[in-house]
Amino acid sequence: MSASQQPADSRELVLTRLIDAPREKVWRCWTEPELMKLWFVPKPWTIAGAQVDLRPGGKSSVIMRDPDGNEYPNHGLYLEVVPNEKLVFTDAFTDAWTPSQKPFFTGVLTFEDEGGKTRYTARALHWTDEDREAHEKMGFHEGWGKCAEQLEEVAKTL
Amino acid sequence: MSASQQPADSRELVLTRLIDAPREKVWRCWTEPELMKLWFVPKPWTIAGAQVDLRPGGKSSVIMRDPDGNEYPNHGLYLEVVPNEKLVFTDAFTDAWTPSQKPFFTGVLTFEDEGGKTRYTARALHWTDEDREAHEKMGFHEGWGKCAEQLEEVAKTL
Repeated sequence: MSASQQPADSRELVLTRLIDAPREKVWRCWTEPELMKLWFVPKPWTIAGAQVDLRPGGKSSVIMRDPDGNEYPNHGLYLEVVPNEKLVFTDAFTDAWTPSQKPFFTGVLTFEDEGGKTRYTARALHWTDEDREAHEKMGFHEGWGKCAEQLEEVAKTL
Repeated sequence: MSASQQPADSRELVLTRLIDAPREKVWRCWTEPELMKLWFVPKPWTIAGAQVDLRPGGKSSVIMRDPDGNEYPNHGLYLEVVPNEKLVFTDAFTDAWTPSQKPFFTGVLTFEDEGGKTRYTARALHWTDEDREAHEKMGFHEGWGKCAEQLEEVAKTL
């Protein structure tokens, strides 16, 4: 569960995990709102709402809630959707195709079969080195790592 | 040939023209490299090369050449491709999905039938007001307007 991969670019962060579930189930966890609610933020945070319009230009909206009940909406757009293989989204746009206040990162997720398990790789591509560094300090590896564990737990129940 | 349209956002520039050719031909001018070369920059500039990979995430590369022979490459990615209706591209990425050095604008083109002619609308959506203003000062309306006239000339020959 702890294989690593070198980023291809200084503006990139990468997390990879071997998840003990077939990639179809890992894909469902990433694309079905009811399943996303179960793993998308590190506990004890929760997801107050999730919407998915799964097509290039379709919106992704997830409302994260902290333990005190404060809500943090998270909006983005899907850029590329290859079922069970690849999912790309960005915060560079809000609606199709309204630029956001600030493009921070684009997420590129790949799901590869590895003997019935899933090689799950999440790459976060930033527009600047400063943003990559900020994301790292915000706890990218810890947060996305913890979420990957939660995702695996959910995928195993499907 | 000179209808106007109000931008929906202060970061947006809009140009619209009624082009005397059916939209299938206008679409071809925008998506076939050999045709793009004939109209894509205001003369006496020329196009030294054009490549089109027409799908979400596909690259668009156009090399513009000034009268002294200096070349200015122009790279972008297509985000949405609806044949004969809508074409969206951006300079926010170079390859799929490597962030560019600086996201400047996203182009949203629509092609609507208007009695056998084409209502051609080009919207340039910027991430900041400053970039919208810079694009305007660079001569957006004049440049894109001149190109729209050149495009019409080419479309009429098809």
